[in-house]
Amino acid sequence: MIHDLLITNIKGLVQVREQPVSKVAGKELSHLPILQEAYLIISHGLIHTYGLMKDIPSEVKAKTVLDVPGQFVFPSFVDSHTHLVFAATREEEFVMKLKGATYEQIAASGGGILNSAKRLQELTEEELFQSSIPRAWEIIHSGTGAVEIKSGYGLTTNDELKMLRVAQRIGRETPLTIKTTFLGAHAVPREKTKEQYLAEIIDEMIPAVAEEKLAEYIDVFCETGFFSVKDTERILVAGKAVGLIPRLHANQLNRSGGVQIGVKMGAISVDHLENMGDEEIEVLKGSDTMPVALPGAAFFLNLPFTPARSLIEAGLPIAIASDYNPGSAPSGNMPLMVSLACIKMRMTPEEAINATTINTAFTLGLSQTHGTITRGKVANVFITKPMSSIASLPYSFGCNPVSKIILNGKLLA
Amino acid sequence: MIHDLLITNIKGLVQVREQPVSKVAGKELSHLPILQEAYLIISHGLIHTYGLMKDIPSEVKAKTVLDVPGQFVFPSFVDSHTHLVFAATREEEFVMKLKGATYEQIAASGGGILNSAKRLQELTEEELFQSSIPRAWEIIHSGTGAVEIKSGYGLTTNDELKMLRVAQRIGRETPLTIKTTFLGAHAVPREKTKEQYLAEIIDEMIPAVAEEKLAEYIDVFCETGFFSVKDTERILVAGKAVGLIPRLHANQLNRSGGVQIGVKMGAISVDHLENMGDEEIEVLKGSDTMPVALPGAAFFLNLPFTPARSLIEAGLPIAIASDYNPGSAPSGNMPLMVSLACIKMRMTPEEAINATTINTAFTLGLSQTHGTITRGKVANVFITKPMSSIASLPYSFGCNPVSKIILNGKLLA
Repeated sequence: MIHDLLITNIKGLVQVREQPVSKVAGKELSHLPILQEAYLIISHGLIHTYGLMKDIPSEVKAKTVLDVPGQFVFPSFVDSHTHLVFAATREEEFVMKLKGATYEQIAASGGGILNSAKRLQELTEEELFQSSIPRAWEIIHSGTGAVEIKSGYGLTTNDELKMLRVAQRIGRETPLTIKTTFLGAHAVPREKTKEQYLAEIIDEMIPAVAEEKLAEYIDVFCETGFFSVKDTERILVAGKAVGLIPRLHANQLNRSGGVQIGVKMGAISVDHLENMGDEEIEVLKGSDTMPVALPGAAFFLNLPFTPARSLIEAGLPIAIASDYNPGSAPSGNMPLMVSLACIKMRMTPEEAINATTINTAFTLGLSQTHGTITRGKVANVFITKPMSSIASLPYSFGCNPVSKIILNGKLLA
Repeated sequence: MIHDLLITNIKGLVQVREQPVSKVAGKELSHLPILQEAYLIISHGLIHTYGLMKDIPSEVKAKTVLDVPGQFVFPSFVDSHTHLVFAATREEEFVMKLKGATYEQIAASGGGILNSAKRLQELTEEELFQSSIPRAWEIIHSGTGAVEIKSGYGLTTNDELKMLRVAQRIGRETPLTIKTTFLGAHAVPREKTKEQYLAEIIDEMIPAVAEEKLAEYIDVFCETGFFSVKDTERILVAGKAVGLIPRLHANQLNRSGGVQIGVKMGAISVDHLENMGDEEIEVLKGSDTMPVALPGAAFFLNLPFTPARSLIEAGLPIAIASDYNPGSAPSGNMPLMVSLACIKMRMTPEEAINATTINTAFTLGLSQTHGTITRGKVANVFITKPMSSIASLPYSFGCNPVSKIILNGKLLA
């Protein structure tokens, strides 16, 4: 048999799991299995097998052979929280903030989520796709293989559907595995009351999203002064009724009860968690909900980071995603998120790599197919530049560690 | 006349200065001249001319034409403070620190500068060159065109000379413009008293560096508990006697008098400055010494950042460099330094770009040849990926903005 791809003399094959795991928690997070001096065989888009170089079968043949001494092979990152589809960057707000403008002044100048919504509403679906596709390629080149994309800059039924269609099209026109989330409840449009908008979300948007099968997940921006715990529950109940799985923005700005309502509603993840107390940690301990930290947003907004060590010491799992969006986290660079997890959240490289691969995969229902090097999984991996150990990845912050990318078993040019 | 290179439809030609300036201070830092819808002509390794597209001469001819609508052209970054020549990364210490090890424990396990010195002493000059050259190419690809490299991991006369020879060889074998600094006084080797080592620096190393013309500058790690103000003065006096210009590590760990001795000795720059008081600012106001911030080190070590706004409000100039080194700042990524300057030090994009181009050039005696787009200067520029404004560069943190690189007038493949 001639395989598609053979990679030889791999310095370390990272996150090798003979048996699939669904997620990794507590002390287990510090265990990152690495096979040293290894080979990897890929066929038909899948991980066929792997092993030690000293055991490589002499008769093995492949159409493409990559010999990579000194280099590591990682499973591609799974980025479980992004707003990758948007019309335009918002660096002018960034500069206003640097010069001391308040959130109110930025909002008054047409800034914030409503700014993104206005610009997105002006674009056709094709224009929105063309505007977004370079960001998809950008994250591919920094090592991401699967990504969640939220709606939430549409804020009308048509524009929310348009965003989700564009997100799904990115999945067809790039090698990325895409999962979509309906986030109609991202902000209340100016021309509506919250009650009017909640009715539109529940009566129009959610049925339309379900009808067109445009999303698997439903999210709510659950924060004091935005969507309350009660609003959140109403929306999630309506979403669950048509099969949408909750994943929730929670506890970024304060302890608003987001974690509690997320767990109560069976959310697959609660994301942000910069503001956590003992009660939130206790609630998570009794649940299957994954806590997700988004260190790019804390870095960019100069807010406190999610207390990762408290979560891990409580025996909980933790996942790390980018929150790539034009307002609060304009970066989808997962290697840099691993650096931030280590430098700012005191996670070890092993913990941070588990958090950005298998644990993010869990939140997207991808833990059986993505997030580890396991026989039969989708062959989504990247080959690093030469490095001395896996700790080089977070240590060399801002340095792109990716040398070659293989997605769905195909080597990218 | 057929020119070497013509770049057309440039969205913004950044840092265009008709008249050369030596440095930019105070309110002037927020002025970054940009020519919109421009062309740039390069010949014989130099910036030949530039202008508005609407005025482009119809007869202009060039061997290579690059049409770059939507893209900006920047002068290459000048990184005025690095330790780019080293034997090995030190990510194992990074991990020890993450796990809570103290500096004493790291030192006891053979860590710190003495660790780098031990490893460097074991390498031949050729091995050290081979180990360092990938980092030179790495910074080229993130937009750096000129760089200062310090010795200081040798700590014996032979090894200090070896480091400086390697740094100079990088200048011959890459398109980087290199300036070298003798930093024998980086740490005291274990087997010597400080007094013995000071004598070796002054009586052996400085004369040998001067004899071989291996450095233009001299630096001292001036910090309480390391090299005192008095030690610093002795070393700088000896260096100046053979023509070495002082540039000084100062005020990283506390207000040790580093700024004062730097100014007194006529240092071209004082670098770090995380700990500054009114007295230091007053002293700088009466001097030509450039204050240099190194935000990569503050970021990586979780220390306070240099108070850039206080310096700028005092009417002072400020420069920003990477401090690329294996212990406290393992990144030479200047676009990320610009991001850190904005996000963490509240500098505007204009200020941060002046600080990383013309002001760093000033500290290396390069302000007449580098750091701006000016006729007759060395053609060191990079073309960005499409972006909406120069603020995109710091805003899109962790995203490499560089699309094409031209150094000494030659387009890199």
